[in-house]
Amino acid sequence: MIIVLKKDATEAQIKHVVEKVKVLGLRPMISKGIERTIIGVIGEEEILRSQPLEIFPGVEKVMPVLAPYKLVSREFKKEDSIVDVSGVKIGGKKIVVMAGPCSVESMPLLLKIAASVKKSGASVLRGGAFKPRTSPYAFQGLGQEGLVYLKEVSKKTGLKIVTEVMDTRDVPLVAKYADILQVGARNIQNFNLLKELGMLKKPVLLKRGMMSTIKEWLMSAEYILSNGNFDVILCERGIRTFEDFTRFTLDLSAVPVVKSLSHLPVIVDPSHGTGKWGLIEPMSKAAIAAGADGLIIEVHPNPEDAKSDGLQSLLPENFAKMMTELKKVAKAVGREI
Amino acid sequence: MIIVLKKDATEAQIKHVVEKVKVLGLRPMISKGIERTIIGVIGEEEILRSQPLEIFPGVEKVMPVLAPYKLVSREFKKEDSIVDVSGVKIGGKKIVVMAGPCSVESMPLLLKIAASVKKSGASVLRGGAFKPRTSPYAFQGLGQEGLVYLKEVSKKTGLKIVTEVMDTRDVPLVAKYADILQVGARNIQNFNLLKELGMLKKPVLLKRGMMSTIKEWLMSAEYILSNGNFDVILCERGIRTFEDFTRFTLDLSAVPVVKSLSHLPVIVDPSHGTGKWGLIEPMSKAAIAAGADGLIIEVHPNPEDAKSDGLQSLLPENFAKMMTELKKVAKAVGREI
Amino acid sequence: MIIVLKKDATEAQIKHVVEKVKVLGLRPMISKGIERTIIGVIGEEEILRSQPLEIFPGVEKVMPVLAPYKLVSREFKKEDSIVDVSGVKIGGKKIVVMAGPCSVESMPLLLKIAASVKKSGASVLRGGAFKPRTSPYAFQGLGQEGLVYLKEVSKKTGLKIVTEVMDTRDVPLVAKYADILQVGARNIQNFNLLKELGMLKKPVLLKRGMMSTIKEWLMSAEYILSNGNFDVILCERGIRTFEDFTRFTLDLSAVPVVKSLSHLPVIVDPSHGTGKWGLIEPMSKAAIAAGADGLIIEVHPNPEDAKSDGLQSLLPENFAKMMTELKKVAKAVGREI
Amino acid sequence: MIIVLKKDATEAQIKHVVEKVKVLGLRPMISKGIERTIIGVIGEEEILRSQPLEIFPGVEKVMPVLAPYKLVSREFKKEDSIVDVSGVKIGGKKIVVMAGPCSVESMPLLLKIAASVKKSGASVLRGGAFKPRTSPYAFQGLGQEGLVYLKEVSKKTGLKIVTEVMDTRDVPLVAKYADILQVGARNIQNFNLLKELGMLKKPVLLKRGMMSTIKEWLMSAEYILSNGNFDVILCERGIRTFEDFTRFTLDLSAVPVVKSLSHLPVIVDPSHGTGKWGLIEPMSKAAIAAGADGLIIEVHPNPEDAKSDGLQSLLPENFAKMMTELKKVAKAVGREI
Repeated sequence: MIIVLKKDATEAQIKHVVEKVKVLGLRPMISKGIERTIIGVIGEEEILRSQPLEIFPGVEKVMPVLAPYKLVSREFKKEDSIVDVSGVKIGGKKIVVMAGPCSVESMPLLLKIAASVKKSGASVLRGGAFKPRTSPYAFQGLGQEGLVYLKEVSKKTGLKIVTEVMDTRDVPLVAKYADILQVGARNIQNFNLLKELGMLKKPVLLKRGMMSTIKEWLMSAEYILSNGNFDVILCERGIRTFEDFTRFTLDLSAVPVVKSLSHLPVIVDPSHGTGKWGLIEPMSKAAIAAGADGLIIEVHPNPEDAKSDGLQSLLPENFAKMMTELKKVAKAVGREI
Repeated sequence: MIIVLKKDATEAQIKHVVEKVKVLGLRPMISKGIERTIIGVIGEEEILRSQPLEIFPGVEKVMPVLAPYKLVSREFKKEDSIVDVSGVKIGGKKIVVMAGPCSVESMPLLLKIAASVKKSGASVLRGGAFKPRTSPYAFQGLGQEGLVYLKEVSKKTGLKIVTEVMDTRDVPLVAKYADILQVGARNIQNFNLLKELGMLKKPVLLKRGMMSTIKEWLMSAEYILSNGNFDVILCERGIRTFEDFTRFTLDLSAVPVVKSLSHLPVIVDPSHGTGKWGLIEPMSKAAIAAGADGLIIEVHPNPEDAKSDGLQSLLPENFAKMMTELKKVAKAVGREI
Repeated sequence: MIIVLKKDATEAQIKHVVEKVKVLGLRPMISKGIERTIIGVIGEEEILRSQPLEIFPGVEKVMPVLAPYKLVSREFKKEDSIVDVSGVKIGGKKIVVMAGPCSVESMPLLLKIAASVKKSGASVLRGGAFKPRTSPYAFQGLGQEGLVYLKEVSKKTGLKIVTEVMDTRDVPLVAKYADILQVGARNIQNFNLLKELGMLKKPVLLKRGMMSTIKEWLMSAEYILSNGNFDVILCERGIRTFEDFTRFTLDLSAVPVVKSLSHLPVIVDPSHGTGKWGLIEPMSKAAIAAGADGLIIEVHPNPEDAKSDGLQSLLPENFAKMMTELKKVAKAVGREI
Repeated sequence: MIIVLKKDATEAQIKHVVEKVKVLGLRPMISKGIERTIIGVIGEEEILRSQPLEIFPGVEKVMPVLAPYKLVSREFKKEDSIVDVSGVKIGGKKIVVMAGPCSVESMPLLLKIAASVKKSGASVLRGGAFKPRTSPYAFQGLGQEGLVYLKEVSKKTGLKIVTEVMDTRDVPLVAKYADILQVGARNIQNFNLLKELGMLKKPVLLKRGMMSTIKEWLMSAEYILSNGNFDVILCERGIRTFEDFTRFTLDLSAVPVVKSLSHLPVIVDPSHGTGKWGLIEPMSKAAIAAGADGLIIEVHPNPEDAKSDGLQSLLPENFAKMMTELKKVAKAVGREI
């Protein structure tokens, strides 16, 4: 932690800050420059982080030196983490594709989609049973019924299941049916939910919030790891910007950035990240080229009638075609699908 | 709903869209322009809203005509809503000031702050018992103990209590102690929490999310109203932008905008909205001048030792001084404090 | 400047950085912490600023200690600057109101508006002769003819003139007619234009860019001051955010922030900042309450036929009514209009 | 153009709008819905675009149906445009790589870099002679001297030259030396500069502004085309968002979006778009995978001493290595380098 003092800070003010640092059991090192005095603090930065040093008289600004996350960081663990989803490994050489409808709508439809995406090379089935919707008047998901369908289809196809949990109260229920529990973008800072998931023994897919900096996203992951669950898969799904042609702005540079800061695997959601089905293929290729460990994609055989996200769903035949193309890109960057 | 067709849309494509509209029980009106055909749809727009018409072949874009919120809108209720908090009325001529520490830290400290802000003219005491913190390693609040202190201090001072609830499981507990239940910015789209609060008979303070459009904010309020609770107070608390000198960008134009779109009262939180105590007074004055119905402000007698948000807390004496100034501004715009 | 080294930085890497600092004539001070070594650099930070130290092997990050602007800063000049526009003083106790049409359209119309806004209390007439328009097909302004009208009306009414200059080639021409030369938001980083204006002896109104941080805005002002012209008036006019109900998000907290960082006067443009005439009055009141030194407002007697910005123009009668209200708010904050 | 009337719009108000539309020579079509009356306008939308219809009494909102750009649109020209830069074709199957230093610093250094990037497969040399710098105290470029060096190196190596022009006054000078004139992000709405470039017979590289929507970017291109110059190459270079780990957020989805809306070629600048040299390779791969027609990349043999942008420059050997990898990705998506 570096404490920069104001140009006109008095000796008494400097002493007051120095005393505070010492009281906390840390060691201050004072450097007097031509324009400013600065105090470097040696010791556990965490102790200082919660102190509002910026309001101490004479202090101009406080600059943390260390990143606030620990367990998720590359410093903590040098090698890539591989999350094992009942045999499907995420974070290794093989790129994992998760696909399926936005919402689970019915058993036959789900089975049809599952069979189709499996054939094209997907290994995880996505599908929402609990749906976060901006409008209270929109379809809110089938709830437990949807979970039952997902499990059933999983048994029939061998696909693993990823599905969203929105409420701390639903964690045990969803955990019973899902192979991966998804935290949606809107719950990225639902800290109680993160804590509950941290106490599970199941993998968690943590979507970046539409308003989350990369640092905050990693801090949310830290909530899960620090509660004991290290099986976290990060998912870039677009951030909110001023650009309104796409639904969000897919931040693909987050992929190599996160991989440099953290050991956790990172996948990309081009369906939500763009909001337009026509952009899914180019952005999926780009995600793989940028180093993503996987993709999560919405597929629906009849998007015109989908109960949600029809605009950003691929037809099964387009998904199949795309998978063929993705294999080429994966190979070009030394990966496989 | 207006459906704009592509320049080269075929007759068959137009017919396909028209049929869909009719199947839904709505009436399409076709206008053929020089460059485009457009279809206006007469009838309940809500029915069409969930249809992904934009992916129908030949469709270029779909433009909703009506706002998606209903119960919160000025159209639904012309006159201003006044929320009655056990006698303290929010939304009328009198501007209501809520003040107190970020977190409840101890009984004596809370009482001291409460007595002080009451003397300066505050009528509601704020204080967090459950704290959403970006870091799992930061102080997370006293929990139920904090609620007990709040209630106790309320009894002693007559101040009403506003405090945050973060978890659906805690709603009954918090409702037992609080006069107003606060939804924090990070839970603006925690829809299950909103639903639970909609089933209460207690006022709710709904903070705008840091990345919520005004429309989404009103839709979140709609969740509460549509579940039966009309006592919602909206709170502007800053949005996330590229500017990083302030913690957030306080969007004061949201105050007159929301008051034109909705009948609900709107207050402003300049502490979180700026993140700097030195900006609280000018932005509080500005909020009142812009038409806010109230303010919520962090006050701490010793910000240097505050367990959270010390940077954005006013000293009680500065709060008192500010209140004197705010009275003048309130009077200048035909209000009182 | 603080240089933070990586956890695993080698002695050779540290030495390499230290040597570089010394070669530049500066003095490095090394502090070895538990987790990191940091190097504080004593001396002219400007010298280091242009060095890409972050890419030196072993360096994790570089944190500047000083603000990059000098002449515009409060440190350079403690007292408020007052810009004298041929007798109209901007930055003192009196709040200065600039008003007029978006574009100069005709001589009679300009004169009519000028007479009206003068009567209501404006002391500067605004009006665009050169118009930056997003579309090449939109009205681009009357050019020199517009300047002639402005000068003529100025002579008749005594109002000072503020008008935009967009092109380095037009600076001498505009300077001949205008009392204040305006740099529009889109030219905030047209550095050659800023340099030309820095060599003038006329006041400059520098609008914040829609994408400018406060720091960048001040750096653009620094271009003008460092070329010799200290008569710069800053103007907050809204920044681009994700919120699209308003045309821009008027950042009123920028007013007290800039006044703390700089000695220059700051005014506010609620017309462009909101894009909606109905929001001009509340945001003008708020701007004054926040501490603005002036306002610049679009007024047109027949907005339905205005050649530009009709949506955000006030009728003269509404402007007059608003001025009466603004006087009350100004008085409440110890100012006058 | 669709005009939506307020719920309580009177017949007189509707008539007033209808009359206005007719006076302009257009044909209004009125549809009375249950909740709203809407007026569709048949005819040249351009005529209506500059009318502030939203302020007409009784009007709720106005929704344009057509895009505001014409000549740049896919509707105007179905097939991809290929810009011929003295034999180097941009926009075809071959991906064009432009590389070189941020600023031209000296003749020997420029020649060295040029020879190196040519060997690796670049066909255009980039290098700034006029540099837009946030600080007036930073290196501003060599000016004409830099242009002379670029030309000289072009003659020796056969590489084409792309270099920035910042001032209308410099257009003839830069046009004399450059093969492609670059408009930087900060000049995206320097409309006079765009007009001057529209009157040239040389290709223009138009960088997206850091705060430009895709629509505004295309409108700026429209300025150039509508003045007669159709040889425009668009360049995505990152937009400003709340994320501050990267210098900007590279919006790769803009590549397929622009290619769907426009016939112009699009290239990507991962150096400025990320601000970190370590991200250039993954984002270059991603750009190609997303469909970009080219890349523009900063290369410097000694970034530690570069006069600008050292942080985001690749070493020549890393550039060479990257080019090898990019060839594989290009092949995977059916292109070549």
